[in-house]
Amino acid sequence: MNYKLLLQYDGTKYDGWQKQKTTSSTIQGKLELILSRMAAAPIEVHGSGRTDAGVHAAGQVANFKCDIKFEPEYILAYINQYLPQDICVSSVSIVNERFHSRLNAQSKTYLYRIHNSTVKNIFQRNYVTHIERPLNLELMQEAADYFLGEHDFKSFCSKTKMKKSAVRTIYRLDISQTENEIRILVHGSGFLYHMVRIIAGTLIEVGLREKQPEDIKTIIRGKDRELAGYTAPAAGLTLLKVFYD
Amino acid sequence: MNYKLLLQYDGTKYDGWQKQKTTSSTIQGKLELILSRMAAAPIEVHGSGRTDAGVHAAGQVANFKCDIKFEPEYILAYINQYLPQDICVSSVSIVNERFHSRLNAQSKTYLYRIHNSTVKNIFQRNYVTHIERPLNLELMQEAADYFLGEHDFKSFCSKTKMKKSAVRTIYRLDISQTENEIRILVHGSGFLYHMVRIIAGTLIEVGLREKQPEDIKTIIRGKDRELAGYTAPAAGLTLLKVFYD
Repeated sequence: MNYKLLLQYDGTKYDGWQKQKTTSSTIQGKLELILSRMAAAPIEVHGSGRTDAGVHAAGQVANFKCDIKFEPEYILAYINQYLPQDICVSSVSIVNERFHSRLNAQSKTYLYRIHNSTVKNIFQRNYVTHIERPLNLELMQEAADYFLGEHDFKSFCSKTKMKKSAVRTIYRLDISQTENEIRILVHGSGFLYHMVRIIAGTLIEVGLREKQPEDIKTIIRGKDRELAGYTAPAAGLTLLKVFYD
Repeated sequence: MNYKLLLQYDGTKYDGWQKQKTTSSTIQGKLELILSRMAAAPIEVHGSGRTDAGVHAAGQVANFKCDIKFEPEYILAYINQYLPQDICVSSVSIVNERFHSRLNAQSKTYLYRIHNSTVKNIFQRNYVTHIERPLNLELMQEAADYFLGEHDFKSFCSKTKMKKSAVRTIYRLDISQTENEIRILVHGSGFLYHMVRIIAGTLIEVGLREKQPEDIKTIIRGKDRELAGYTAPAAGLTLLKVFYD
């Protein structure tokens, strides 16, 4: 059987999605431990993508295969019973044997949240990046528009030795504001390592007038990480949704 | 000099506002430690009221007296430098010597947040109470209206031996909903021990049809804690604002 999971997690205390030998504190690690106990056999969980340490997910998708047939409701209750308070499975369903959460993912949306005020918001401290100086929203949206469409996003990737293609498509990149919070919502075909955080960092620099909106064109064309802005902190980032056919 | 502080804190990890001999983990304790070091003399901080363990504040008010004159900006920067991530002073000002944050408080507003859904919201886990069964908003608002005005709120107080008057005035008690969240906003002249949490618990029971809106009249009249609903969890409660003349 092939089971699909929809899950949310607060990444604050975790070393990211991917299981590691040096730490037991990863989302994938927690899930595999619980599911392997349930199935009484080693279970491997595939996520739609890895999220970095400190990055959150409101709608991460994962799948795992298991010979035994369990009712989805049973799995849902079993996992949530053993998961810590900061991870929760929202739904479980049985899917086609060929479904793979990463390989079949068509596109994803991410949200980057900025608390833009001289006063901190301690309740949101783990979910936003705090920028004290006022950001110019119009400049940020103007810059955002240059990202739309298909481009080689090498300048927006922290991995220096990229063998695979860095071409991705951004369908939507919207900047909005409510009270003291600025939100960057991005929908794209896929994202390179640190890509959303570097886009957010670059847009923040534009908002602070350290870069011009038109600079985005040059940065993309240059295919050089050095040209783009800083990698905005992990805490501000949330994986919202993964789209499949 | 008499200094007034406006502060916010995430009460999750604390044993409440009030300093205690058995724990160093109180908001008042943390503030006094830092301010006494700044002033190089013991400083006593007066809060507008005690918040319970796990209760939050977005706009708590406190004051302290100190012989030395410091610039408010200096105090603000000094305290925030040493405070942990979950407490933050938003502003400091010099006030009249006679100002006392508790004795002069005219009224307060509290917010009680309920996440009403079968699916948890892990990002809000420390700030809401999770109720899975659907709550009836209209019944809750109908019940809320019975609280308005001046009443003896003995039935809504956890302290069994009340010597002082339990008469308080509720100016406003509004129920609202946005997506899966139900918010109880209450503005009153003052609140007894656990009063807002018992009002919230009672309104939740009305929303679940375990009590009728009209029951509120009988409960208030009975002056008996046993008649009211349960004490809703601390996590859902936030002190929003303290009003002065």
